[in-house]
Order: sequence, then C-alpha cells, then structure tokens
Amino acid sequence: MTTPAPYDLCFVGFGHVAQRFVALVDEQRRRLAREHGVRFRFVGAVTRHRQVEEPRGVSARELVRRMASQRGEPSTAATTRAVVDFVRRTVRASASARAGRLIVVETTTLDVTAGEPATTYILAALRGGAHVVTANKGPVACAYARIARAARTAGRRFLFEAAVMDGIPVFNLVRSSLPAVRIIGFRGVVNSTTNFILTAMERGEPFDAALRAMQRDGIAEADPSLDVDGWDAAAKTAALANVLMGATLTPARVDRRGIGPSTAAEIEAARKAGRRMKLVASARVGPGGVDARVAPTAVVSSDLLASLQGQQNAVILDTDLLGEIAVVQLGAGLTQTAYGLLSDSLTISRDAGRSPRSGRPGRSL
Amino acid sequence: MTTPAPYDLCFVGFGHVAQRFVALVDEQRRRLAREHGVRFRFVGAVTRHRQVEEPRGVSARELVRRMASQRGEPSTAATTRAVVDFVRRTVRASASARAGRLIVVETTTLDVTAGEPATTYILAALRGGAHVVTANKGPVACAYARIARAARTAGRRFLFEAAVMDGIPVFNLVRSSLPAVRIIGFRGVVNSTTNFILTAMERGEPFDAALRAMQRDGIAEADPSLDVDGWDAAAKTAALANVLMGATLTPARVDRRGIGPSTAAEIEAARKAGRRMKLVASARVGPGGVDARVAPTAVVSSDLLASLQGQQNAVILDTDLLGEIAVVQLGAGLTQTAYGLLSDSLTISRDAGRSPRSGRPGRSL
Repeated sequence: MTTPAPYDLCFVGFGHVAQRFVALVDEQRRRLAREHGVRFRFVGAVTRHRQVEEPRGVSARELVRRMASQRGEPSTAATTRAVVDFVRRTVRASASARAGRLIVVETTTLDVTAGEPATTYILAALRGGAHVVTANKGPVACAYARIARAARTAGRRFLFEAAVMDGIPVFNLVRSSLPAVRIIGFRGVVNSTTNFILTAMERGEPFDAALRAMQRDGIAEADPSLDVDGWDAAAKTAALANVLMGATLTPARVDRRGIGPSTAAEIEAARKAGRRMKLVASARVGPGGVDARVAPTAVVSSDLLASLQGQQNAVILDTDLLGEIAVVQLGAGLTQTAYGLLSDSLTISRDAGRSPRSGRPGRSL
Repeated sequence: MTTPAPYDLCFVGFGHVAQRFVALVDEQRRRLAREHGVRFRFVGAVTRHRQVEEPRGVSARELVRRMASQRGEPSTAATTRAVVDFVRRTVRASASARAGRLIVVETTTLDVTAGEPATTYILAALRGGAHVVTANKGPVACAYARIARAARTAGRRFLFEAAVMDGIPVFNLVRSSLPAVRIIGFRGVVNSTTNFILTAMERGEPFDAALRAMQRDGIAEADPSLDVDGWDAAAKTAALANVLMGATLTPARVDRRGIGPSTAAEIEAARKAGRRMKLVASARVGPGGVDARVAPTAVVSSDLLASLQGQQNAVILDTDLLGEIAVVQLGAGLTQTAYGLLSDSLTISRDAGRSPRSGRPGRSL
C-alpha cells in the first residue's frame, strides 16, 4: 500500500482547543491511517504573538513548543493585519492548497458582534485555496452566507461542527444523515454555564454564588456576560438558523434575554407549577423569515430539555418528514471540541475527489 | 441539464411500510431530483401472494393497485421458494443491477429466531448485483456478518436505518458523522409498546388493561409477546451491537427479561425511590466480547431515559472520544420508517461512483 499524500494543517489561533486538536491528531495517527487512509501534517501556525511556517511539516511536540515560546505584546491592529498577511502568504505558497489538501484550522477568540477578525482570516484562507475548519461560532453566526459563497467560488469546504455542541454532530447529522429533510425549527439548551447556574439556583444557591463557583472552577469566563446575558446562546442560535434553515441572522438580531439574580423568582414560580427554568434557544420559520430567540423558559417536566443536568446540552430539531429528533450531549470538554475539528477534517479528506452535491438552498454545508 | 439514469426500486414484501415508502418517493420526487439529482423508478414487487415485474417502470399508483388486487392463500413453503426465484430472476435480468442502480427494498415480516426468510431474500438480491435496503431488524440481528460479507463480495450496499429507530439516524450517524470514534457501549429505550405500557402502569392502570388499550389502538400486535417479552428490544440490541460494536449476537443470545403484570410491584418500588421503570436495552464491550441485555430497570429521574414518554425512544451511545451522545426519537410513525428506507436509498445513490472506504473492523456499514 502506498502512503497517500498528507493533508496539511495550518493553525490560525493556537489556544487550548487548537493544542488539544494537535494532540488528538497525534494520538489517533494510526487509527486515522488505518481506517480513513488519511495522514495529517502540521505545516504552520499563527497567533498575534507567534508564527511557525514549515511547509514540509513539524511534529506535534515541536509545533507546540515553538508556539509556546516567549510571547510579545504587539498592538492588536498591527497584528491582525500580520495574521491576515501570514494566512494569505502561506496559503498562496502552498502546493497542498492548489491540490485541495490544505486545511486552515481557525480557533481565534469569539466576537459576537461581527465575527471578526475570524471572518477575515477565513475568507483569506478560502480565497487562497485552503479548506477551513473552525471551532469559532462567530463567523457562522455573523457571516455564514458570505463565507459559504466564498467557499463555493473557491471550490473549497468551510466546516464548523465544533461551533455549537462541542463536536457532537448537529451540522454533520443534518448534512449527512437527514437527506431530503427540511428543518422547520429547533429548540435547545446550548449554553453550559447558564444551565449549571440555573441548576444550582434550583437548589437554592443565589445567582452570584453559583456564578462565582463556576468561575472558580474555570468553567465560566472572568467576564461572564457572554454566557449569562445570552450572547453565547444567541450566537449558536444564529449559527444553527443560518446553516440549517437558510436564515441570514446575526446574534444581535436574535431576540435575547439572559439570566440574573432576579431569575430566582421565576425558578420558584416554575417549581410550584412542576416546571424547570431553562435558557432555551429556539428558531422557527415564520411568515416573515426565521424568528429566533433566547430566553429563560419554564419547561414542563416531561420535556426532554427539563432533564438536562449541569453542563448537558441538547438540540431538538423539528423536521417536515421525521417530526422531532433530539441530539443530546451528555459529556463535554476540550477533547469533544477538538474532535469536532477532527471530524470536519475527515469529512474534507473523505469527500475529496467526490463530485460536490448539487446546490441546496440554505443548506450549503 | 440531462436527466440522470434512474435508480430502480424492486420490493420484497409490500405491506404498510413499503406502500408508505412508495408514496413518499412519489410525493418527494421533485425535491429528490432538485436536491439530490436522483430519480427513482418502480420496477417490481413480490409478496407470497402477488408479483409485479416491469423493468421499464410503473407509476406508484399502478404498482399499489396491482399489488393490492386479489390475494390467494398459497402454502408458505412453496411461496418462499417462489419469492426467492422471483428475486433471483428479476435481479439477474436487470441491466440496472449490472450498473449498480437496482435497489431491492426488503420489508417482509420480522422473524427474531433466524431472520428468515428475509436473510435468504437479501443474500439472493446482493449476490445478483442489487443493493438492499431493509426496514426489517431480523436479518441485521441474526445474520449481519454474513450479509455484510456478501455485500462486500458483490460490491453492493446493505443498509437498514429503519430497523431500530424508525428512520431516526443511528447507523447513519455513526457511519457518517462520528468518524474515528469507537462505540464502547450503549443504553436505550427502543420498544415503544412497552414504554407506553410502563407509562400507563405508573398512572395505576393494570398491565392487561394497558396492553388491551394499545392493541385496540393498533399500536401493539394481536400477539404482543414480541414486545412485552422483550424480543423486539433484543433484536434491536443485537442489531446495534453487531453493526456498531462488531458483535456477532443473535436476539436469543441477548440476556432478556420482559414486562408483565408483576412489573407493577417494581414500578411502585421504583416510584418510592424517586425512579422510573424503563425496559432498558444495553450492550457493553466486556472481556469476553460484547455483553448485551434487555431488562426492566429502575432509572434515576435525572437519567435521560427517565424523561421518555409514551412512544418516545432513545439510544445513548458511549464513545471513546466524545463521551455519551444521545439520539432521541420524539415522534414515531409509518412515515418515519419509510423515511429510513428513503435515506438509505439516497445514501446509495450519493455514494455511487465514490471509492468505498477502506475496511473498518466491525463497522462494515
């Protein structure tokens, strides 16, 4: 058996998720070769502080070592430009990109207002001829139609399984396992921090104490507003609606209400009515397009969403042919998110050489 | 745009599921052509009572009309032989089969002891050069390894999404959306009738009354032993374990306990402990192979399986890389089962011309 040409991986952003992905690819090297006939090579990485460019590949250990060494503090504006230049230059110089065998792995910080600068990085990579996989919900939530169009024009893939449920398949499920089905709406619990806080508040803990406990455990961010104000859930809602239902939403256009100390009264009222409060994300095809919202909602105890504990997430898809189907994430963590990136990379290698499916309105996955 | 050559569909068994599938293909004709570039043609059907053979295709209405007209009552043995002969002859005579464009749609009656005569029909179809899709769990539960081998030898597909969760993707999910993941076990509620009865018994209804109500509504069979004795769940357990975990089980080798009037005491004891009784199907990779069982089980209220009402089903997959993932079927019916057959047929048309993936131990989907 001849060794197949490798797929090259180039990283934009190199935080915990990217590093876990590098380790996962390295750990699973033999399984990937045996079962998928695919080999990955690490050819570069860029952050606002460091760059590695090795067209012939470096080991996982070497890549992590070199990206971890001394960090400067350059000005943000200058370095966003520098990152774009790096992406453009390395992609253009890559023989793998020309052969459709370069994958840019984008994992920079979430920006819910414009999905930037991630969207700029992604567009530069696609236009240069790279495929892109991302764990970042910002670009899918803010600029999906534009990126999907650029990908189609370039004949490259843009995939983002890790953006909503940490690599538990939602987008891939609809794309690969629900052919000929229309998604007409969905409901879900998609933010772990708020679900954790609501569960603690049901036990009588005050909001602030529950939040501080999560920050102490490193689950919630130091600035928790992305979670508790519903922005993270709104971004995931926009991403799901844009991709699965052909919407052109942004997080700001999702009707959004978060949770806070005053949610305690709603929790108590819900409890008396035999219900549980959950931060429910939902979208539905309406007469004027797709309506989407995020709001604390009292769900009946027989509702699947009521059964979600702690950090568990779920999305219930409403479909025209199959009724309601739910996908539930019972465990979460960095490995799951990294797996989403791996799954997308394998989709790209698996579909290579296969003629792309005919265009499907609103489902240009 | 030139019209692509059609995929021919030939039916073995022609009950409610097959007829709903014919109607579904007919209703969705335009969507299938537009979004999947695929056209289906009905070229034949056989039961122990009727045969239609039309290599150039007939309309859905014509097929149903001709299969519905007068039924004889020939002896079973003679006609099983006649069905096999029909399959062998029509497949061998089919130019579509030679081009890999004939799909035999098998929907004969479930036999949990040997998966026969369905397995014989399926092997005859595959060996002649047809792909096979089935809604019948018997062959997958009793003879999966043998059928998968025959399919590989013939270079044809054998798919069965409808066999376990009525077309809600489980097999397809693992095959397409969980690359490089190992399934190390699963737990689930996979039989609707028993879940319905257990829910009614929790409300205080006696077993016999609940069962009679389900028979009256046409949900349970006149002979309910397949459901209440756990045979249906055991067949689904064997099917899942065989396909997803490389087991070589049969339903009889699944450790099996059903439900009955005496389950009332267990339900009451569970209720006092804050639990719910569910007929839980499970399998796990053990030291001596895959251990599988079906048994009434008291699940804690925070367990996802505890939240399943009425006819809802769920399978929780335990994986090496992603932890636990659940797929939940919230609605059920004939259309869902028919959709499973359609989804498999689209998988076949979509993967045509694509080089088959390298062999994967225990996962020859």
